[in-house]
Parts: sequence; structure tokens; C-alpha cells
Amino acid sequence: MNIGIIGTGNMGSGLGKLWAGKGHKVLFGSRDPQKANTLASSIGPNASGGTIADAAKFGEAVLLATPWAATRDAINAAGSLVGKILIDCTNPLAPDYMSLVVGHTTSGAEEIAKWATGAKVVKAFNAVFAQVLHSGNPLFGSEPATIFYCGDDAQAKGIVAGLITELDFEAIDAGPLKNARALEPLGELFVQLGYGLGMGTNIAVKVLRR
Amino acid sequence: MNIGIIGTGNMGSGLGKLWAGKGHKVLFGSRDPQKANTLASSIGPNASGGTIADAAKFGEAVLLATPWAATRDAINAAGSLVGKILIDCTNPLAPDYMSLVVGHTTSGAEEIAKWATGAKVVKAFNAVFAQVLHSGNPLFGSEPATIFYCGDDAQAKGIVAGLITELDFEAIDAGPLKNARALEPLGELFVQLGYGLGMGTNIAVKVLRR
Repeated sequence: MNIGIIGTGNMGSGLGKLWAGKGHKVLFGSRDPQKANTLASSIGPNASGGTIADAAKFGEAVLLATPWAATRDAINAAGSLVGKILIDCTNPLAPDYMSLVVGHTTSGAEEIAKWATGAKVVKAFNAVFAQVLHSGNPLFGSEPATIFYCGDDAQAKGIVAGLITELDFEAIDAGPLKNARALEPLGELFVQLGYGLGMGTNIAVKVLRR
Repeated sequence: MNIGIIGTGNMGSGLGKLWAGKGHKVLFGSRDPQKANTLASSIGPNASGGTIADAAKFGEAVLLATPWAATRDAINAAGSLVGKILIDCTNPLAPDYMSLVVGHTTSGAEEIAKWATGAKVVKAFNAVFAQVLHSGNPLFGSEPATIFYCGDDAQAKGIVAGLITELDFEAIDAGPLKNARALEPLGELFVQLGYGLGMGTNIAVKVLRR
């Protein structure tokens, strides 16, 4: 397949190199075509470089791999994308990477913290199916599923981490309570995977490490 | 530890039973204390039942395991929670479970779809670190990491799924493009885990199944 890649950064170069290695033709597009050419040369004959418009025209599928702040300009520079498969791997990150600038302004947990005056709220267990809890064995084969927890009180978080791990889950600290803005959508994703998208409830999230 | 559990549904009963099995004392609180007593009796001597206020008073840690619509009333019924560890496992789900009613109104991908007229936008690869792509081997041990993808064009999604799996990732269909509202926070979560919370970038998400 011909794949256009808008952006020569880590994500674009990483996926472009991998797809070129599988025999696809990739064309990297950049505001700086010379940069795209240099990247392409480092990859080999399946890769070439050009402008953003070149990449958009070239690809049956086009990977959008831009920093969020450059995304709209890149789309404008691409020209027509009618009928193209546009693979969007961007995240609308704030400049400090610690929040999203689009679509996320609060969370249930933060509302709860306002309502429950004085409580040390810790978000946890919101992305595990109750069916897993009731199954008699939380392990998936030999693997513990991940339970993320977040909150603003370190001592409370430590206690909750203990309450997680003693149930044979892996507890992962997901930061301050406002990160419930990420954990609650994860819960919603699992609801949809389980009930709306046919995977059933015998699933759980895991952070792989190596 | 004494643990109060607000809610006798799937999540509350599941965690309550597990913690009671580990030797903690749990008190289930419900608007219907008889229901809480019946649940407690089915679990054994480490469990008891009562009102929501009873559970809040009893627990050093209090699990909030209510349907979202009942959450605020439950907190009001709990009385003072000052100094309590309040474990929040709720998700602010819409009645049809297919969206969140708090904090999530759009996504970068949906904005991109507005900007890129006519394009078949597929969100994908937004929660995998570029470092994993560049490492020469995307597998974690023998396990492929999960790449979620979502979009509104079935054919485009099928092609993107192929582009994912041929790179030795597992492709999981995360539904319509609006579910980027869940995938982008997942990307943000991994950014924070990797850069802000000390896990580094050699991590990836996986959906466990059994």
C-alpha cells in the first residue's frame, strides 16, 4: 500500500520505518521536505520524502503524526483529503504534556471530591469488570490485571494500593486525582469493549513492561 | 482494616467479599439496610450491613460503589466523610453506558474529522510510545501490545487494523470515532506514566482476556 506520513518526528519515523520494512511504500511529508528526504534515505528504497501535500496525495492511507499545535496547519497544508484513510495518532496534549486541551475539563472523581467535604478521595477499580471480581480468581492465566489508582493524598493512596495488591491485582499509581480524567474514560472504554463491541466481560487492562 | 462499602451492587459486593476473605471487616451500606444485611449474611462473619451512614462511619476506608446517578445522594446520606479514605470506583456513565456525562464533550480526532473534509479518520497508535516503535521489536516478551483503533468508516477501519497487526501489535476495535474521547485520555495516561510517574517508555497497554 502507498502510505503518506505527515510528520517526521518519533511517531511518524517509527511507523514509517516499520511499514516500509513490511514492503509498503511510504512518503514522508514535512514543512521541510529536505528533512523528510533525509529521513527517507536513512530507511531505504521503500521510503521517499516531500511536502505535506505530497504525502497526502501519495497515500491511500495517510498517517497524521504531528504535535497537536501543528495539526490544524498540517491538515490545511495537506490539501484535499477526500476519500483518504487518515490515521490519527495525535493526542491533544497541553504544552506540559500533563493534560488534554480538548474535551476534558473535569471528572466524576473531582466532582465527588467537591461533594464529599474533607474526604481523601482515591479513584480506583473503575475499569475492572465486577464479573472479574466475582469469578473467584482475578488472575488472567498467571498475570495480574492492572488497577490504576489516583488521588491527592499520598497516605490514602498507599493504603488503597495495599487494598489492591492483596486482591492479586497490580496497583499502578496514576498520579493526582485530576487524572481520573484519564481513568474514567478508560472505564468507559472497557464498558464499550465488554458490552457494545462483543469482547464480553472477561477482559481487563494490563500495563506491559519490559 | 474496617472498610465501609456504599452500594450493594456488583462492584460493592465483589470487592467487599474479596476484602472480607482477606480478613478485613466490611460493612455494606444501602438505602435498604435489609438488602445490605442479606448480602453480608451471604459472605460471613467479617461482613455486616446497615445504612449508608453506618458504612461511612464504620470504615477507615469507604468504597463508593454507586451508579453515577445515585452518587451525589449517597454522599449526602453518608454524613461526614472528613478524614476518610474514599475509594471511588464509579464512572459517570450516561444511561446507555456509551458515553461519560462529565468532562468529555469532544476529542482531537473529532476536531480533525471536522477539519479534514471528506477524510475517513481512524484514531490509532495514540497510546504507544514511539520508543517502542523504534526499538526493533514491539513484543513484550511473547506478548503483542494492544493498539486500539476507532472510526466511523468500516472499510477504513479494516485496512488500519491490517496495518496494525502486520507490525506485531494486537488491533482492537474501539468503536466509533467519538470513542477517541476514551483513547486520547489513555494516550495521556501513558504519557504521564512514562514521563511523569517514573515508569519510563518501555511500557504499553494490553487487554487481557481469558
